[in-house]
Amino acid sequence: MTKQECIEQILGGHRRTPNERGEAFASANIALCKYWGKRNEELNLPVTSSLSISLGPLGTQTTLSQIDASSDEIMLNGKSIPSSDVFAKRLTAFLDVFRRSSHQRFYIDTTNTIPTAAGLASSASGFAALVLALDRLMNWGLDQRHLSILARIGSGSASRSIYNGFVQWDRGSRNDGMDSVAERLDATWPTLRIATVFVSVTAKSIDSRSAMRRTCKTSRLYESWPSKVAEDLVKINEAIRNQDFNQLGQTSESNALSMHATMISTSPPILYWLPKSVEHMHQVWALRAEGLPLFFTMDAGPNLKLLFEAQNEDAVRAAFPSSNVIAPFLSTS
Amino acid sequence: MTKQECIEQILGGHRRTPNERGEAFASANIALCKYWGKRNEELNLPVTSSLSISLGPLGTQTTLSQIDASSDEIMLNGKSIPSSDVFAKRLTAFLDVFRRSSHQRFYIDTTNTIPTAAGLASSASGFAALVLALDRLMNWGLDQRHLSILARIGSGSASRSIYNGFVQWDRGSRNDGMDSVAERLDATWPTLRIATVFVSVTAKSIDSRSAMRRTCKTSRLYESWPSKVAEDLVKINEAIRNQDFNQLGQTSESNALSMHATMISTSPPILYWLPKSVEHMHQVWALRAEGLPLFFTMDAGPNLKLLFEAQNEDAVRAAFPSSNVIAPFLSTS
Repeated sequence: MTKQECIEQILGGHRRTPNERGEAFASANIALCKYWGKRNEELNLPVTSSLSISLGPLGTQTTLSQIDASSDEIMLNGKSIPSSDVFAKRLTAFLDVFRRSSHQRFYIDTTNTIPTAAGLASSASGFAALVLALDRLMNWGLDQRHLSILARIGSGSASRSIYNGFVQWDRGSRNDGMDSVAERLDATWPTLRIATVFVSVTAKSIDSRSAMRRTCKTSRLYESWPSKVAEDLVKINEAIRNQDFNQLGQTSESNALSMHATMISTSPPILYWLPKSVEHMHQVWALRAEGLPLFFTMDAGPNLKLLFEAQNEDAVRAAFPSSNVIAPFLSTS
Repeated sequence: MTKQECIEQILGGHRRTPNERGEAFASANIALCKYWGKRNEELNLPVTSSLSISLGPLGTQTTLSQIDASSDEIMLNGKSIPSSDVFAKRLTAFLDVFRRSSHQRFYIDTTNTIPTAAGLASSASGFAALVLALDRLMNWGLDQRHLSILARIGSGSASRSIYNGFVQWDRGSRNDGMDSVAERLDATWPTLRIATVFVSVTAKSIDSRSAMRRTCKTSRLYESWPSKVAEDLVKINEAIRNQDFNQLGQTSESNALSMHATMISTSPPILYWLPKSVEHMHQVWALRAEGLPLFFTMDAGPNLKLLFEAQNEDAVRAAFPSSNVIAPFLSTS
């Protein structure tokens, strides 16, 4: 099934008169159990399920309206972006499949509330906010599951950014991906803290889409990744249910390291870690050996995201003075 | 089968009057396809086969004689070692199974010709030299296959240090390990060079025996390791046969990285890399991207071993001024 057919299937009965404008915010998310590898590249269908935590006020705010113009007008963080820009191209290509006529053009004003120095990806919250804003502009009135599917077609992890809190994206098994949908877990954890430790903003040597593809194709160790994820998802769900922080931290860290391990074993190898990343990893382990319940996770990049609880915030800030601390559940309440 | 029974089976028909002394040298070796994981801890039977290159003059020189004393006397690099020392204990325990009577005592003078700053392990050449010296002292007259088995019982990778050049240690399938033996490949590669890049001599946070054990027990990704090794062994043998340096380097590097990847995915994680290791890895990749055919391998530690050919020695020395260059085939000819 093509992207177009899939979207048609969702929007079929939802064509209504559009509104003047649509506005929405979506939180960024950090996966505790990673999404790594696609079974279908066109629809962003994943090899495995994944589980994330949303980052409350850190995310993307997007406003959409229809304009009478020959091309879309895109504002990013208050600045106009030329249509030749990579970001603009990706946005325009995604919007193409939603236009009611080939002449329909949009004004898109999108602002990331994620500090660059946090080293967090904005594509998940970006596509989620865009889909939510589209739903309001176009007056579709879709439910969250369908919004999650549309966001997923924009960017896999955006399927999770439709929701707040802990979110699990089930891989599903259908070829059309209609069951590859994220859902919010009925759980909260007010004392949970995340801190981003910034290592580098330099453009990555390889984008994560290509890294995923190379891992699936050339990493022998990737064959064991699905069973690792299955095991970790059970443990993370259990940890959330029992508010067992050690189990949550240990499993999340192990899952992230295993994802990086699958990349390290690709040909040619992919290593997102920089010397400073490894220094921070050893620092976390040393602090843990001294008794501080501190863990980390890492996405496809060199930055660390620390996991800890509120009572240890001072100790973590002292050890990592330049980190940005996020309280995911306080800020979304 | 116990260690004792296994050794008895080999030595049964070889009891002769001992000589005055036995002396032997064995080269250290670097695995291009790694030995990682045991299927039998007592006999050091490996999960997979492995393949190494010996390091010519870098290794261990050992002299043995019988003495009339209440305990063994051990000299290491010209210095007497107390019997309470870890090294002495391991040596004495290994010798125990070879004593002709419970009163037989040895004088052991062992010297490593491996500079500490090379960051190379000496247990492989150490146990190989000890077994070769025992064979001469005890007048056993064993063939190399049996010497390889005895060395393996001392330390797995010592099975390969009985030989020079390229050596393959077949995992075997028997429970008594009588087919888990190393053999020399009929091949030479005079232009091959290895350079050790020293990162740290600090005692490792976890010894490789324990690291292997934890990997086998807790790393999900380790499940794919045997099929990775099977594939790499074919490629490395082919590369040696065709003197295809790129294939040799690429496969060796990928194999080493995959071994580290299996450790990175253990619980708790094992990361031998230090910030400096990662800096050197990126440096190798940057040089390769510029066209220099340079690869690396790493054992269970933070140091890199570079692989290249003679014509690029100047370029490698310029990039890694503190490295020690070894010409494995020139020095053993």
